[in-house]
Amino acid sequence: MRKMSVASAPGKTILFGEHSVVYDEPAIAGAVNKRASVKIQESLNNYSTLKSYDLGFEVILNTRRGTYKLVKGKPGIIRYILNAMGKFHDHSNIDMTLGLNLPIGSGLGSSAAVTVATIAALHDYHGVPITKEKLAEEAHGVEQDVQGIASPLDTLVSTNGGLVYLSREKRIVRFDKPLDAPFVIGFTNKYGNTGKMVKHVRHLKDNYPELINPVISTMGKIANEARIAILKNDIDRIADLMNLNQGLLDGLGVNTYELSRMIYTARENGALASKITGSGGGGSIISLCKNSTVDNVANAINKEDSTIKVKFSGEGVLVNRRSPPFN
Amino acid sequence: MRKMSVASAPGKTILFGEHSVVYDEPAIAGAVNKRASVKIQESLNNYSTLKSYDLGFEVILNTRRGTYKLVKGKPGIIRYILNAMGKFHDHSNIDMTLGLNLPIGSGLGSSAAVTVATIAALHDYHGVPITKEKLAEEAHGVEQDVQGIASPLDTLVSTNGGLVYLSREKRIVRFDKPLDAPFVIGFTNKYGNTGKMVKHVRHLKDNYPELINPVISTMGKIANEARIAILKNDIDRIADLMNLNQGLLDGLGVNTYELSRMIYTARENGALASKITGSGGGGSIISLCKNSTVDNVANAINKEDSTIKVKFSGEGVLVNRRSPPFN
Repeated sequence: MRKMSVASAPGKTILFGEHSVVYDEPAIAGAVNKRASVKIQESLNNYSTLKSYDLGFEVILNTRRGTYKLVKGKPGIIRYILNAMGKFHDHSNIDMTLGLNLPIGSGLGSSAAVTVATIAALHDYHGVPITKEKLAEEAHGVEQDVQGIASPLDTLVSTNGGLVYLSREKRIVRFDKPLDAPFVIGFTNKYGNTGKMVKHVRHLKDNYPELINPVISTMGKIANEARIAILKNDIDRIADLMNLNQGLLDGLGVNTYELSRMIYTARENGALASKITGSGGGGSIISLCKNSTVDNVANAINKEDSTIKVKFSGEGVLVNRRSPPFN
Repeated sequence: MRKMSVASAPGKTILFGEHSVVYDEPAIAGAVNKRASVKIQESLNNYSTLKSYDLGFEVILNTRRGTYKLVKGKPGIIRYILNAMGKFHDHSNIDMTLGLNLPIGSGLGSSAAVTVATIAALHDYHGVPITKEKLAEEAHGVEQDVQGIASPLDTLVSTNGGLVYLSREKRIVRFDKPLDAPFVIGFTNKYGNTGKMVKHVRHLKDNYPELINPVISTMGKIANEARIAILKNDIDRIADLMNLNQGLLDGLGVNTYELSRMIYTARENGALASKITGSGGGGSIISLCKNSTVDNVANAINKEDSTIKVKFSGEGVLVNRRSPPFN
């Protein structure tokens, strides 16, 4: 039988604290029930391959050189996989399959999910035991190599799963239960540029410290209030806090025509709340729904933009030779 | 020759401080170059009439009873005129013509403009001298009678003209020059309900004082910064402040799908800034433009909503038997 390993890891979404987290305010983010999965099989050929049905690409890999030859499609996310293979693979020939049921570039942490799943599958394939702590760290290293700069939160949440509160002191506290409510993520094909947005907020803060500092500290207070509301499962209060946070993000100038359209389309169609998730300037919104309104909200946004329905999930990385969550 | 009087008074728009002004924060508002005009002529018949070509209505008035008989159209704004006539007219038969080149219910203070113009024309018709101070007060009285509650700012600005700063202590300071920049007012047919919006903000503030108080006090600081920027004619800074103020208004929950659409349509089409003007929940937005972009912005908003181009104006009430501004 061919040697085989499978691992999967979840995407994440930020519920509170984008931008203010840059200024050491607390944030809340969580793993979602949409995942990246990586299957590694011993190759029967004298070369390695990487395919993704979900992303519609196929390449022949030179694992020794860290290069590839395109067979089909656009392997957008391949740099993360090549970097991980360069570090954690022994150059034996393998066939890799990448599954992904979350959209790339939508602020759902697809690169972190792919990276965590890839490293976990590689270690398992080579019989190398690894702690979650070490795995998160290695995945963060890959993200930093590829992106130049990366938040450790994405890889950490993807590895451990669950909903987490990041304190001012950068301490991570995992909530006992992920929030039990349906969310709709709305996204356009206009990607946000995180670096540019962070710079824009910095500029505004430098020009108007007396005005922007209280906005950012209020965002921190919102995250702290939200922490309590989540512990109490007080959905109405979480909704109020999301909507207020959205206004403050708008004030910081990271909202756009499309994001605003999705936000108000969601609210007009029965969402309890909606806000930008991630750095804005494009990218995604997250909308808190009721079970009875989640389809309405998604359908309404889908008329002009795209959506994915998610729930927060306690499941982090999963390594299992038999049952990949999907292919 | 028939005895005749003509008076006109400007509409106004709020530039900074809606909602926060309720909590004694400063505000900035100004008269615009769109006006209500009232012409009064001695009647040749044994009854009184009121017509408006602009509003498309015509009525026969019973000035003694304060009632009217509809001839044509919908006399939406007639209650203000009837109330003013009850107080300041002697029941002789007159023919009144109302001109209005600003939209009703769009937050541009059309009722205050109509009321000020009506009272000024009536006093002139009867040869009663009146100070601007007294006129503003009388007009405020009419607004209060008709609406139950009314801001004295509308009638005050309409009477005196110009751009004014309203301090925390409710002291009115008139800027030497009205801001010299073109603005587009965008409005939908969804009117905002000021009372409802003020109540909504109060409720939010009661529920989340720690979060809403800093938002409201930041709005006050924005108005103070804006005062300085206006004195320096620093348009870029005024624009930044308007956009920041808009986010905070959004956070207070007074934004809507349509207002948001107009705000981002304006910004995407070359506006320097755009924000809700007035209490929101419907109503209008105000967009700061350059001379080179004002038409672009108006055309873009006009695709789905309505606009009126305005400038701030130093001209308050004008009483002149010969040259009404229009009609």
